[in-house]
Amino acid sequence: MSDTTLPMIGAKAASTIRIVPVILSGGTGSRLWPLSRASYPKQLWSLVGSRTMLQETARRGVGAMFDAPIVICNNDHRFLIAEQLREAGIENARIVLEPAGRNSAPAIAAAALLAAESDPDAVLWIMAADAVITRPETLEQLLPAAAAAAQRGHIVVFGMQPTRPETGYGYIEAGKPLSRLPEASMVAGFIEKPDAATAAELVASGKYMWNSGMFVFTARTLLKEMETHAPVVLAPVRQAVERRTSDLIFQRLDPASFLSTPDISFDYAVMEHTDQAAVIAGDFGWTDIGSWDALWDIGEKDADGNVTQGHVCLESVHGSYVHSDEILTAVVGVDDVVVVATRDAVLVTQRSRAQDVKKIVARLQAQGRKEAEAHNRCYRPWGFYESLIQDTRFQVKRIVVMPGEKLSLQKHYHRAEHWVVVSGVALVTRNAEQITVHENESIYLPQECTHRMENPGRIPLVLIEIQTGSYLGEDDIVRFEDTYNRT
Amino acid sequence: MSDTTLPMIGAKAASTIRIVPVILSGGTGSRLWPLSRASYPKQLWSLVGSRTMLQETARRGVGAMFDAPIVICNNDHRFLIAEQLREAGIENARIVLEPAGRNSAPAIAAAALLAAESDPDAVLWIMAADAVITRPETLEQLLPAAAAAAQRGHIVVFGMQPTRPETGYGYIEAGKPLSRLPEASMVAGFIEKPDAATAAELVASGKYMWNSGMFVFTARTLLKEMETHAPVVLAPVRQAVERRTSDLIFQRLDPASFLSTPDISFDYAVMEHTDQAAVIAGDFGWTDIGSWDALWDIGEKDADGNVTQGHVCLESVHGSYVHSDEILTAVVGVDDVVVVATRDAVLVTQRSRAQDVKKIVARLQAQGRKEAEAHNRCYRPWGFYESLIQDTRFQVKRIVVMPGEKLSLQKHYHRAEHWVVVSGVALVTRNAEQITVHENESIYLPQECTHRMENPGRIPLVLIEIQTGSYLGEDDIVRFEDTYNRT
Repeated sequence: MSDTTLPMIGAKAASTIRIVPVILSGGTGSRLWPLSRASYPKQLWSLVGSRTMLQETARRGVGAMFDAPIVICNNDHRFLIAEQLREAGIENARIVLEPAGRNSAPAIAAAALLAAESDPDAVLWIMAADAVITRPETLEQLLPAAAAAAQRGHIVVFGMQPTRPETGYGYIEAGKPLSRLPEASMVAGFIEKPDAATAAELVASGKYMWNSGMFVFTARTLLKEMETHAPVVLAPVRQAVERRTSDLIFQRLDPASFLSTPDISFDYAVMEHTDQAAVIAGDFGWTDIGSWDALWDIGEKDADGNVTQGHVCLESVHGSYVHSDEILTAVVGVDDVVVVATRDAVLVTQRSRAQDVKKIVARLQAQGRKEAEAHNRCYRPWGFYESLIQDTRFQVKRIVVMPGEKLSLQKHYHRAEHWVVVSGVALVTRNAEQITVHENESIYLPQECTHRMENPGRIPLVLIEIQTGSYLGEDDIVRFEDTYNRT
Repeated sequence: MSDTTLPMIGAKAASTIRIVPVILSGGTGSRLWPLSRASYPKQLWSLVGSRTMLQETARRGVGAMFDAPIVICNNDHRFLIAEQLREAGIENARIVLEPAGRNSAPAIAAAALLAAESDPDAVLWIMAADAVITRPETLEQLLPAAAAAAQRGHIVVFGMQPTRPETGYGYIEAGKPLSRLPEASMVAGFIEKPDAATAAELVASGKYMWNSGMFVFTARTLLKEMETHAPVVLAPVRQAVERRTSDLIFQRLDPASFLSTPDISFDYAVMEHTDQAAVIAGDFGWTDIGSWDALWDIGEKDADGNVTQGHVCLESVHGSYVHSDEILTAVVGVDDVVVVATRDAVLVTQRSRAQDVKKIVARLQAQGRKEAEAHNRCYRPWGFYESLIQDTRFQVKRIVVMPGEKLSLQKHYHRAEHWVVVSGVALVTRNAEQITVHENESIYLPQECTHRMENPGRIPLVLIEIQTGSYLGEDDIVRFEDTYNRT
């Protein structure tokens, strides 16, 4: 690799460069089970600080330097992502939906194709939604140089100054600095996740950086390099973008085209082949939140080196990460463990074995256990529900409907429902009637009645639903009309 | 100690001796938290086999050799114990209620005083409700000799052949065999819980047995020895027995008298002082279920030496005990741990630190955490209830009422209640009305209405109660009438 390419200074001077943030939010984070599950993955949780990792990532791309962001995510997460972006004050995102994850190369290709539609020279900044950056200001200072290198035709990767011989990351060797842009160097080589001895050598040499998975390039460069090195990825993604459909505020990639794309990372598909790879190094406090031990690494430790969150009680415990949503979790006389308790699943592991959590998740999936993929709380565009108890002939749910939202008009063949409003107000459609149900009032919905629930008020509507019947599956539902296009 | 006492052959020959089983069920078993809690302690759980430890213990005293048993327990557990005994087919027990636990010496004194009322020479067999005996037939074969020794005026303790150098038990040294009763020996000495080195020596010597805490004596002998060695225990207990009251099927010891008794074990109060102590040794498979490691010890192990119960998934785990009521519990890459998950509390500890669980419980008690003492499910004489969700202004409960049972007639100042019957049938009193509520029907009980729920049917009544109001504490209740004397 060399810097022989002539500088391709774009139409805009570096000082006025505008960048399109691209947020990849397609992962399911199974190593962070039981908190992270396919139905509500890690980037949507606030594991560090008060914002979720998705929100933190998206906020990094807010400011005068940035155009509207592109967020690429799974179709199933669209309402969650839209709500989290809205909550974080980001109203202009283009939310692009994948029918299923195909790793980073197809997602990045889709972002470049979409950006190129309005400006083939657009500068894109690719960020994964599941990393923590503790010094974002340092990163921001590196961005103009990255954009300048991008405009010369480079694909820039941010290299993070290593702080320990981590075996879970890829490493980058920096080569010759770019002429007239000494902040950036050509990439001399990539090293995949090394073993412990190699990692120690790499860090000791001082010549290697962690591959942060954050890239900066122009749409034009990226598409040209993909055409050369990964045409089997680019062609179907191009078709998926061309055939995309709009759904409310979302852009849905054509499922058949997108699913024919190989599952491949951007590093494998492009970075290890292109001779345009450049690196800009810095100490911006990047950590990939790949497994529970990463959260222990970056967490604030007590005198015994423990990181705790939630209802936790420790006795003679050292070097451990203990997290509990609501169940009281007591740990006695163990060292270097991870304990995570959620309402329906508990994980206990040695911290050094945190990578193996995915094995358990795979086994649970093979056994068809719902806890492998879904949480007890199910998010919907109108709010959420959770099962409080389920028996053979009855089920009790808490349902929360956000102000102004409404469920679909529906009926059930096998179950009747009692609704008791415990907070807020409900406007209920029951066959031809419309009934307002206030706090501390109830309504009965017999089997096969057509019904709908809606929150006409200004505060969340909370109601308790008691279902009775011989079959209580979620698939006993006939939807007649739905605000969120789910019929 | 010597065997100089002349044989005191009683009125009955050994072959026709009848024995009064006495079951001590006063403990709270805090080392088996979070399953065992003061409100529902370990002896009431089926931790080994399908019967509870109380039921297993009580069944040992059923047969031609035995009179009606005496069960001594905490006042708070009376309905649970009565129900478990009924379930185990034991209808003739005398259930004696302590206002609070005062250790074994007062409880044993109370049993002897009660038995002496009908027969001062009654032979009593004292058993703790929280031990497991895997070879009860061996124990039964030793009973006639124990009864014969008891009739000669001895206080006999069963000594268990040690199988390992256990530091958690007391040891007994056997002395000279009794004349004409070689199965029994005088006790040469007691050794309290030894350190590991001493325990190893004791076991290697072959001369020491574990103190099983099971005793056989006549009421007359016991009361005489207590008069001599523990008059400060006997006097208040005698008063508590004399002033006892009957309550339904229970005998309630006079609380003020009983509470003035010192908290002291029978070993300290009597056995270490009397010169009538004798021991009968055997290998009857006795284990005190004092802490979680005992359950691992006696449990059936998989190929990796793990004992599991419930919804458990293990990956690279060895020598561990993992128990889960209902929450899926996954353990990865740890050895020799105990993991116990209940609906509202999780425990993780090194197996060797299982004794320290009581420290955590003490801390939780000091913090006023309800999980330290009470379970989410609360048992009542009419059935049970459990909170499914609690918020500031509402609470949802599942209530189960057994056939023929009824709750008290009551009212609440601060909350209204919606009841939805999901199984069975309810007869509801609401002020002057009596209303039958069938499955899939509901009824509303406004604040301050006088109400009562009763199950007139043949199957358990299950209903979902939704409470709304500004104060939802259990103490917002005015009871007008109660079948179970709780007004």
